[in-house]
Amino acid sequence: MTEAVVTCPQVYLVSDGTGITAETLARSLFTQFTGVDPAWHRLPFVQTPGRLAGVFARAAAGPQPALVVATLANADLRADLRHSPVPVIDVFGEQVERLENLLGVTAQSVSGRAHGMGDVTRYDRRIEALNYTLAHDDGLAIQDLSVADVVLLGASRSGKTPTSLYLAMNYGLFAANYPLVPEDLRQGDIPHMPEGLRGLGGRLVGLTITPQRLAQIREGRRPDSRYASLAQCRAECVAIQEFFDIWRIPHLDVTELSIEEIATRVRDCMDARPGA
Amino acid sequence: MTEAVVTCPQVYLVSDGTGITAETLARSLFTQFTGVDPAWHRLPFVQTPGRLAGVFARAAAGPQPALVVATLANADLRADLRHSPVPVIDVFGEQVERLENLLGVTAQSVSGRAHGMGDVTRYDRRIEALNYTLAHDDGLAIQDLSVADVVLLGASRSGKTPTSLYLAMNYGLFAANYPLVPEDLRQGDIPHMPEGLRGLGGRLVGLTITPQRLAQIREGRRPDSRYASLAQCRAECVAIQEFFDIWRIPHLDVTELSIEEIATRVRDCMDARPGA
Repeated sequence: MTEAVVTCPQVYLVSDGTGITAETLARSLFTQFTGVDPAWHRLPFVQTPGRLAGVFARAAAGPQPALVVATLANADLRADLRHSPVPVIDVFGEQVERLENLLGVTAQSVSGRAHGMGDVTRYDRRIEALNYTLAHDDGLAIQDLSVADVVLLGASRSGKTPTSLYLAMNYGLFAANYPLVPEDLRQGDIPHMPEGLRGLGGRLVGLTITPQRLAQIREGRRPDSRYASLAQCRAECVAIQEFFDIWRIPHLDVTELSIEEIATRVRDCMDARPGA
Repeated sequence: MTEAVVTCPQVYLVSDGTGITAETLARSLFTQFTGVDPAWHRLPFVQTPGRLAGVFARAAAGPQPALVVATLANADLRADLRHSPVPVIDVFGEQVERLENLLGVTAQSVSGRAHGMGDVTRYDRRIEALNYTLAHDDGLAIQDLSVADVVLLGASRSGKTPTSLYLAMNYGLFAANYPLVPEDLRQGDIPHMPEGLRGLGGRLVGLTITPQRLAQIREGRRPDSRYASLAQCRAECVAIQEFFDIWRIPHLDVTELSIEEIATRVRDCMDARPGA
């Protein structure tokens, strides 16, 4: 294998639906290739042989190397992939056939199911979850957390809001969050448990972060403020860690985690609950 | 192919990262199989041969049929997939090798890149975009839309907020939205263009919806209200359509579209702008 770097392959993401699966998979694959910076061409809702032929013409006429990454649910369209003038990753092709054999069930070849409304009940629940999460962001409506699936706790700017939105949007979880502020925590001898959080037991998940990273994030929001100072961040992180320890709240260090990684670990915490 | 329905295959989503790619792909594949309702087992952050062996033991001991869907970036772990006691969809395996041949570049086999922080600049932009979108939701801070990548317009409850959040979260787009309310639209002889939206030209994208669907959604929020009445929804939809026509704002009918489909079509509108 030579190490000559092809800086910019043309990648055509072809789907008879949104192409979100194709894009997710292709981007994942290409993260493994350092120095390769693909030009992405999104081609969603390709639902006729004519439109697919148009994609092929475009791929053949454009710069090379080029690659088609296709998630076509329609079996007839998928058969046309053999006419591609450039290499094809036929994501569904092979796998659908294997699943048919494994399950003893014939696939439906229906376009647009993966990211369409699909199961309306499940879809409506996602929208409802998103509305709930927006209404219960940042300690809003704390009296009303009884239906929350999970309540994220942590310092201001530790990633609670993006993670809550991600959990609601992608998994239909009613994800609330509550900022642990110094005033709350120091009401007594031991770190104070805010009224609205009592009785939520296993639904609380804490986020911790290093003071350095927290100060860096806050600095971007309010430069040169006391709020963003390392001393302030350090004091808050210590108090919050003590709070999690005393109240035995499962927590994770999010300093080096993306929203997706935090969300994945929060789901792990939820799965690990007694009775989950 | 027999049509015997296997209602509940056990699907083990195995990844050395978050498993989001594996879950996205597997769920897409299974939407093609009507009557099949898999039991999903998420197994993220599997980064050692021992943990992978543990997954195999669990899959072998559990109900059958079972299937492993694996997105393992680490090539050594991937090689261990041959020891699986149940069928395996090795998502990366074959494709990584094909890409290596196509690009003439060796893959890095680094775990956790697909949904980790990855490129920090790109990651920070996503978080920034999400903060921007939250601050510019529902006509908030309308004076400050100059840096918006896109501004969604439509009736209250036509899907602007979820779509804006989706665009920000997944694509790092600064997506604002503005609710077109009857009072705004009827200020003069022709539908009024709100002050803060002037000069945004190609960045405006309209959402339309049938009065029936709009009334149905609003009914869920405020039952038996004037706001949710079919007459009110009809009047708003007519005025908004007129507004889009007169001001020549590209728009799409979202009545039967999911957030993902709306977001995909909004990106299409953005791509189609002159100079995009």
